[in-house]
Amino acid sequence: MRLLLPAGTTETALIDGISAAGATPELMVQTPSADVEILEYGEPTTAPVTPVSPTGCPTPAAVTRAVREVIDFDCVVIDAGLARSTGAPTVDLGVEAGEDVREFEAVPDAAAVFDRAHGFGSSLPDDEIVIGETVPGGTTTALGVLTALGEPASVSSSLPENPLERKRRVVDDALEASDLEAGDCAGDPRRGPGRRRSGPDDRHGDRRGCTRVRYPSHARRGTQMVAVAALLRHADVDAPLSIATTSFVADEQGDRLERACDRLDCKLTVTDPGFDEGDHVAMERYCAGEAKEGVAMGGALSIVPDGEMGAVRDRLEVVCDRLGIDANGPPRRRGRSRIGTEGGGGS
Amino acid sequence: MRLLLPAGTTETALIDGISAAGATPELMVQTPSADVEILEYGEPTTAPVTPVSPTGCPTPAAVTRAVREVIDFDCVVIDAGLARSTGAPTVDLGVEAGEDVREFEAVPDAAAVFDRAHGFGSSLPDDEIVIGETVPGGTTTALGVLTALGEPASVSSSLPENPLERKRRVVDDALEASDLEAGDCAGDPRRGPGRRRSGPDDRHGDRRGCTRVRYPSHARRGTQMVAVAALLRHADVDAPLSIATTSFVADEQGDRLERACDRLDCKLTVTDPGFDEGDHVAMERYCAGEAKEGVAMGGALSIVPDGEMGAVRDRLEVVCDRLGIDANGPPRRRGRSRIGTEGGGGS
Repeated sequence: MRLLLPAGTTETALIDGISAAGATPELMVQTPSADVEILEYGEPTTAPVTPVSPTGCPTPAAVTRAVREVIDFDCVVIDAGLARSTGAPTVDLGVEAGEDVREFEAVPDAAAVFDRAHGFGSSLPDDEIVIGETVPGGTTTALGVLTALGEPASVSSSLPENPLERKRRVVDDALEASDLEAGDCAGDPRRGPGRRRSGPDDRHGDRRGCTRVRYPSHARRGTQMVAVAALLRHADVDAPLSIATTSFVADEQGDRLERACDRLDCKLTVTDPGFDEGDHVAMERYCAGEAKEGVAMGGALSIVPDGEMGAVRDRLEVVCDRLGIDANGPPRRRGRSRIGTEGGGGS
Repeated sequence: MRLLLPAGTTETALIDGISAAGATPELMVQTPSADVEILEYGEPTTAPVTPVSPTGCPTPAAVTRAVREVIDFDCVVIDAGLARSTGAPTVDLGVEAGEDVREFEAVPDAAAVFDRAHGFGSSLPDDEIVIGETVPGGTTTALGVLTALGEPASVSSSLPENPLERKRRVVDDALEASDLEAGDCAGDPRRGPGRRRSGPDDRHGDRRGCTRVRYPSHARRGTQMVAVAALLRHADVDAPLSIATTSFVADEQGDRLERACDRLDCKLTVTDPGFDEGDHVAMERYCAGEAKEGVAMGGALSIVPDGEMGAVRDRLEVVCDRLGIDANGPPRRRGRSRIGTEGGGGS
């Protein structure tokens, strides 16, 4: 199993009240770069921020890393538009940072990016891949994709109170800017808000390409991955797909997530990491609804063998210590900017 | 332990008769990109070449990968001037491909590259790092560095007959182009052939920087790593260093390598992978003196625990099969260009 983790930024995340991943624009824009360093090295290295909220909730990258330190798995980070450099190795597909989804062309050169990403993905020798993401504001763009595809749309939030109505207004504006109605992109996943329309030939090329996906994909991180699964199904990909998420997202979503997976013929795996058994502020904050998921946390937790979750929780405490989070108190200052107002590096 | 692997290209490799890594300029320039894909994925993915010589000698990356498949270790590839894209994740330090070492400024913007590389290296949390490289023509630039530092210089070759006199002539031309005499850079490792001279302040900054290296470094791949060790010692770094290489390089070098390590206060580890016990054309070619080392092969072999080398050889056969090399015959055609005239992706 190999984890593919696109990491990027979009100006959508800067819309007021959308994302918890960073208290200021500059901190938000640094979060994915720091997340992937945590994933690779166990702590931020060159990124000047540590994605920990003032209450002591670490980025979900800390949990994914804790799993990696217990059961090692291959991980490839894809630069999906990082606006700031990172010390982690990334696959360069020439992707620029995204603009505001309400722009006419929020993803510059989307068709060429799709082709390069498809070329990269189809080159991999793996029998099984897991897809996660760290893109602040990603739930809003996911909502846009689902709406454009005509899928019943509900997405999660890294904030305890999900600003879903605000996200819906952003998506309405985005569709209008792209001259699209909800459902206009059904069966044509390469169109969408913030992407230039493709012509009939492009659409054909897209479908032909997508059906070459040759392995079962496991799209992780609850609600954003519903959008990924929807894109694949609308592109006529019938390979086995499953969605893995955390109990924190599943609790928030109720049966909506299950219904979405049924509709998209995806297996749903919900993992409860047992943080209520832990005695650490980081776990308490997740139990209180902060961050919830992201950076492939749900996917990583889903592969933890029976009986090993206690070791993951123990390891999370070690990772938290590196990030300057004491078991009980608010995070220690470590000479890096702390980020987030409520959640860690979620979206 | 974490392996850091700078991968890059220089036009030095294109000088006639210097390197075995690629029969044509285009194939040579693709070799490092393919090498790091083999290291990450076990086979080339997006690179259009497979670094295997016509006689069936695979790139040393195949051996390093075989070790990884037996005893997993962390590996970070650094883009040290890749002229062609790669599907492997790399750390981007903004390094351009090197020019011919006989140019006045063969490494564009060398001082800034040094600073970024130093910032990256000193950000890492590891207690121990291993350094390798895949840079065709790298032994020639290493010879240039050693000569400029005034160190007795002998380097290895990926060719069975080491074209050392040819390399020396290239280095003489390089020193002349940089207006340097042999030994002119002793104690001032930031100068060197193909690099612009730095002023006194730069030199001070360099020394201060280098002494901040805080972990024992294990520079692997015989003779190029002697140049790395020499640079560190000339920068007054007194951290423990060791050099790990293969018996193939050690056999070629006689006692010169041991003397170099003594002089630079480096521990020397020579590993014999027992390829003479194998029954595979790839192992036979290494025993015949092809390729010898590279892509951290010596470093990887040096960490193989007692009793596991047989498993590495078995695994190498699996990797070779992926690369289209049958146990007995010449390599199969697999729709990719084969490269090399004599050795694999060495230098």
